[in-house]
Amino acid sequence: MSSTRRDFLKRSMALAAAAAVTNPADLFARQTGNIFKSKSKSPGPDKMVLTFKPFEARMKHVFTISGSSRSTTPIVLTQISYQGYTGYGEASMPPYLGESTASVMDFLRRVDLSQFSSPFQMEEILTYVDSITTNNTAAKCAVDIALHDLCGKLMGQPWWKIWGWTNQDLISTCATVGLALTPDGSLDKPKIREKTKETLEFNLIKVKLGNSEEVDKGMITTIREVTDLPIFIDANQGWPEKGYALEMIEWLAERGVEMIEQPMPRLLLDEAAWLRDRSPLPIMADEACQRLSDVRNLHGAYDGINIKLMKCTGMREAREMISVAKALNMRLMMGCMTETSCAISAAAQFASQLEWADLDGNWLIANDVFSGMKVVDGYITLEDKPGIGVEPL
Amino acid sequence: MSSTRRDFLKRSMALAAAAAVTNPADLFARQTGNIFKSKSKSPGPDKMVLTFKPFEARMKHVFTISGSSRSTTPIVLTQISYQGYTGYGEASMPPYLGESTASVMDFLRRVDLSQFSSPFQMEEILTYVDSITTNNTAAKCAVDIALHDLCGKLMGQPWWKIWGWTNQDLISTCATVGLALTPDGSLDKPKIREKTKETLEFNLIKVKLGNSEEVDKGMITTIREVTDLPIFIDANQGWPEKGYALEMIEWLAERGVEMIEQPMPRLLLDEAAWLRDRSPLPIMADEACQRLSDVRNLHGAYDGINIKLMKCTGMREAREMISVAKALNMRLMMGCMTETSCAISAAAQFASQLEWADLDGNWLIANDVFSGMKVVDGYITLEDKPGIGVEPL
Repeated sequence: MSSTRRDFLKRSMALAAAAAVTNPADLFARQTGNIFKSKSKSPGPDKMVLTFKPFEARMKHVFTISGSSRSTTPIVLTQISYQGYTGYGEASMPPYLGESTASVMDFLRRVDLSQFSSPFQMEEILTYVDSITTNNTAAKCAVDIALHDLCGKLMGQPWWKIWGWTNQDLISTCATVGLALTPDGSLDKPKIREKTKETLEFNLIKVKLGNSEEVDKGMITTIREVTDLPIFIDANQGWPEKGYALEMIEWLAERGVEMIEQPMPRLLLDEAAWLRDRSPLPIMADEACQRLSDVRNLHGAYDGINIKLMKCTGMREAREMISVAKALNMRLMMGCMTETSCAISAAAQFASQLEWADLDGNWLIANDVFSGMKVVDGYITLEDKPGIGVEPL
Repeated sequence: MSSTRRDFLKRSMALAAAAAVTNPADLFARQTGNIFKSKSKSPGPDKMVLTFKPFEARMKHVFTISGSSRSTTPIVLTQISYQGYTGYGEASMPPYLGESTASVMDFLRRVDLSQFSSPFQMEEILTYVDSITTNNTAAKCAVDIALHDLCGKLMGQPWWKIWGWTNQDLISTCATVGLALTPDGSLDKPKIREKTKETLEFNLIKVKLGNSEEVDKGMITTIREVTDLPIFIDANQGWPEKGYALEMIEWLAERGVEMIEQPMPRLLLDEAAWLRDRSPLPIMADEACQRLSDVRNLHGAYDGINIKLMKCTGMREAREMISVAKALNMRLMMGCMTETSCAISAAAQFASQLEWADLDGNWLIANDVFSGMKVVDGYITLEDKPGIGVEPL
């Protein structure tokens, strides 16, 4: 770890501690909501204890998608302790998801794990967690990941192995080349070229489109000046007119683009089916696919789904989504938010089941607090370490 | 264990040994197909070794379904050894499935597990096993169960726990009251009453119908002379005319019957949908549901599916079928063949996910060779033992 990074970490951990609790020695707020009280209670070793703290992920670059820019992402880190083992989890809250540090902390304070005798009661525990509120999928995910990490550690195996999968010959993850505009709103081509060059250690580039035709096409032609790596597109619902969407997809197909995420608004299912029938490229549901119950409704309208742990409440529901999508012959990818290596490593457990992976969330941040899934020559690599295979840095 | 049962066991084990190998000390034939050669090879402890032997399950009662009777069922018992652990499995071959001891042994001799470095490579191993032939689902299942038992033991946990489920408050299994006819082909009512009394330790009775109207209705009225326990019906495709099937179901619904399996021939999907729309009772697919790929095709035509390990190739595919059926809001049950407590305990891992269970295969045989899932007051009980939780008797 570089000394700069170490400094960042120290600083962010200290900030997080100050934000969460008065005593920096107690980094994690207990689920009772009152950390002072919880100290006098000493939960038996056979009881699960959930703790959590806020963390601010700082991005290497300002991140722009159609409509917004930001340089940090609020995160809440979770831990579940049980019988001397600790499972780690995480909620990431990009603003468009509608969650905040406050909403996640509020949710986690309501989670009472003391009513369960074993972390292996995953179905019961996570059904209960899901029932607490209607939304808060990222907060739910933070419990789910920590619980999986814990149970995997109790079994001494990583989840890719428990699920009978492999860590050999995994696919590449893409790197995202973000939009860059000059102050007058036109494309900042030198900046795009520079960003593209930074992704050349990867084998696959993701580009977020859905802006004006000029900006969208300019992004692709500028990237193509630098590299002929395969590209996939996330249009973020940006092409509401199906004829235009089809023209754009045909134009992109001639420029080494191999897949399109969410070209049209998520509720336009008939139009999505129309487009899919005509598209030369596979079309994946992103915003249209949040949870397990969405999968069967998307069958026929999309070629496949993009699963994101923060949207589907975590690894358990994601595992079910994989089963259902496969049974419906739908193609599979996983994506992420800006996340530390904790949530990214949780998602990477699924890598062997995917056709595409967009798991560069940890690569995009400057102050990661975990080591875990590593990208080597652009490929996802997973070690044979229990749970989600992470260690705090 | 009663001394009678012990004698049965001794005798059957000796017979099995004599059938499988010349030297009774070596009960299991190695996968090389030549047990003499395999003795000089000593496989490293990190290689999986598959062994198997035939076994004849003797039934407590002659077993009659529409069209055939029998008093024994051929079985092949399997073991996979690895790093000092042993996983147990089983293939059961009732004649109507089209497998025999010879076909299963032939299949198992072709299974080469030495090419895999770890039993945790379940997806790869079982995809390979499935690819060896088109059918042989029971033989495939015998490998699948042994592999699950082995991996569960390596993780130190039962599969119901690994899958995040529970062993608390499990459902009842039914007991089957088989058909009994007098030599002139009419219903043997005293025998039916006697058989019914033997099931009174259970909470649910299964009756196989699909004979003449007189015999079918006679079975139910005779059973109702003895008990008002809830009944479910397996019609074994016996009512090919949908109007008749509906009349029978309406008649049965008035007599405490709560569910019907496979009233009509399995290929008649439109008729099944017609019947389902009108039936006062839920209708489950049995013969119509063999493997994972069948599930989505049955959606709409049946209320749910009956999963049987011997038909779907084992626990891994059954686990997927559960996910898909749930996502399609289909109801779930599991059934079995005549099986020892080995395969029955494998199926019982799923008990918490089912609405009905027909897992009395081990109760029907006189010479069980494993202890495992127990029925207590009619309810399935599962201990917290690794793998499928069985021990050889």
